[in-house]
Amino acid sequence: MSPCRWWSGARPAHDAGVPSVLADLHVPVVAAPMAGGATTPELVAAVAAAGGLGFVAGGYLTQDALRERIAAVRALSDRAFGVNLFVPGPVREDGVAAYAERLRAAGYAPGEPRHDDDGYPAKLALLLAEPVPVVSFTFGCPGAQVIGALQDAGTEVAVTVTGPAEARLAVAAGADALVVQGTEAGAHRGTFVDDPDDPAGGEALGLLVALRLVAAVTDRPLVAAGGIVDGSGVAAVLAAGAVAAQLGTAFLACPEAGTRPAHRAALTAADGPPTAFTRAWTGRTARGIRTDFADTHGPAAPAAYPQVHHLTAPIRAEHGPAPWAGQAYPLVRTLPAAELVGLLRDEAAVAAQRVAARCGAPA
Amino acid sequence: MSPCRWWSGARPAHDAGVPSVLADLHVPVVAAPMAGGATTPELVAAVAAAGGLGFVAGGYLTQDALRERIAAVRALSDRAFGVNLFVPGPVREDGVAAYAERLRAAGYAPGEPRHDDDGYPAKLALLLAEPVPVVSFTFGCPGAQVIGALQDAGTEVAVTVTGPAEARLAVAAGADALVVQGTEAGAHRGTFVDDPDDPAGGEALGLLVALRLVAAVTDRPLVAAGGIVDGSGVAAVLAAGAVAAQLGTAFLACPEAGTRPAHRAALTAADGPPTAFTRAWTGRTARGIRTDFADTHGPAAPAAYPQVHHLTAPIRAEHGPAPWAGQAYPLVRTLPAAELVGLLRDEAAVAAQRVAARCGAPA
Repeated sequence: MSPCRWWSGARPAHDAGVPSVLADLHVPVVAAPMAGGATTPELVAAVAAAGGLGFVAGGYLTQDALRERIAAVRALSDRAFGVNLFVPGPVREDGVAAYAERLRAAGYAPGEPRHDDDGYPAKLALLLAEPVPVVSFTFGCPGAQVIGALQDAGTEVAVTVTGPAEARLAVAAGADALVVQGTEAGAHRGTFVDDPDDPAGGEALGLLVALRLVAAVTDRPLVAAGGIVDGSGVAAVLAAGAVAAQLGTAFLACPEAGTRPAHRAALTAADGPPTAFTRAWTGRTARGIRTDFADTHGPAAPAAYPQVHHLTAPIRAEHGPAPWAGQAYPLVRTLPAAELVGLLRDEAAVAAQRVAARCGAPA
Repeated sequence: MSPCRWWSGARPAHDAGVPSVLADLHVPVVAAPMAGGATTPELVAAVAAAGGLGFVAGGYLTQDALRERIAAVRALSDRAFGVNLFVPGPVREDGVAAYAERLRAAGYAPGEPRHDDDGYPAKLALLLAEPVPVVSFTFGCPGAQVIGALQDAGTEVAVTVTGPAEARLAVAAGADALVVQGTEAGAHRGTFVDDPDDPAGGEALGLLVALRLVAAVTDRPLVAAGGIVDGSGVAAVLAAGAVAAQLGTAFLACPEAGTRPAHRAALTAADGPPTAFTRAWTGRTARGIRTDFADTHGPAAPAAYPQVHHLTAPIRAEHGPAPWAGQAYPLVRTLPAAELVGLLRDEAAVAAQRVAARCGAPA
């Protein structure tokens, strides 16, 4: 709580010798925040109990709901955990009315589109008043004052980035750590800006490349996200310079997850369709299992988040949820979360020993 | 040369205990075949001398030119090497004339478009008559008879794949090993089919995911390709299950490479543009550094390889080569090839030891 930190804007959590929750996990596995119901307090607590780190998904929640979720995690676990917030973006209206009309013409009953800030200021105020060990941000980078205030409250701050340009901005704003998201990742791309002209989510760097490019511009701890589904993948991203692997899709089939039955069935179906990026569901580029709805309407969906999210809410309620999934979803295993974390740890150890034997001692 | 192998179609090079050039390299680094001039016999020999494996790039060469390149490698090195061939695809004419007209209207002087089979049957006959240690294929999978004949001649056969569906086909055809190409890779996507409706090169699996999905359908040795540029990346793909890493872009700045000066300058420029997929240069989806030419004309380029390759040949001769590059090109280092292989080995050893220490012993 040193006022020096506030003014200097430089929290040394990433410096050698200073403890960092993300860099010093017992098992280098993070359960990604999955907003909309998949992440539950039970999932966060189970991952923590197994030595990993879980994130409460603050997106779409009111301040009160976020407070309740945090309290529920604390009731289940006395271990460290994180909270993720969506950074609100610019208001975009272009194409929203036409997309609503298109969906109505196709026989759907869309909801009322509206822009909102996801209750971001109120949730931020909550996290400053009642601090948590780690806060991560997605869809943008808060200013240095916000990051500094969280750090002064004792919170380690991570920012989700998809490449080196965003990494530079996050480091300049004082982030303690970066979550580096590759193109393989399920659900929303974490790009700071969703370019209306680019449905592919920017340069769409593969995770290995993103890690190496980001590591070249900062020595902050990197958490790798995107397409990691087993311990070989965990060991691989550690080799590429990450301090931990963040897995989302891999936890969706856990019994502790709040994954809806239709989503769970799609994830675990044999020979399911591949994934693709689409704006069909929310107006922001996101990766999910291909569906007729996304294939048909995605190309016409405007870059207007969260208007389109609200527009499709009743459609999702009636016809089934957006089947978010990373590219590796065919390899998802249905296991209790703590068992999965233990399995990831064991698989990573085997992979690491194998590679060390193959590569020999450093020269 | 056992006739049994021919008839059974099953060469056991991938079985435990049977030597495999690709699986048993002294240094698990392969210099990718880079057709069009970048790969030289000097590059292949230098990589071999350092304990890696180089590939003669057979694409675009006549049978005679390929014979000369192979002889040149043998004159420089007595170590193992490979030869890569392009598998010819279907003839496609749609949109070629319109694209030529578009380029003329933009002030360019395009060449005569034509389909050809790249001299594939003649080069295959050469490799059967005068066998080499390893042959890899790109753009498709030869039939089991062709693969069996090469194996009977003592050659280890690898097929380039971009995902598990292609891997299944290659394994069914008898391939000894698979080169698994991620979306990060520079130059042409190795997809068996270039879907005219999909400029993104299919599902565009990130390399880590592609490796894990392919490893789930076969136990053949996997060589990982796409965005690997340093030893951390080499260690990462070994952790993900590969027996070796294939690097292309990383070798383009080596003095032994035949990289044209303008291409070399683009690769090593500070803060260069990102890469993107385009059909602008050849009619087949390929990744290169973004240019005005590709940005302007790529969206109008038809899926017609190699017609468009011949169409743009005089344009490339006059205005500069297609600046092929993988996503990690900003990290390319300018070093003699043997030094680069040694550095990759040392970096991989450091990364491997670090990960083994972090992950602990297997349970």
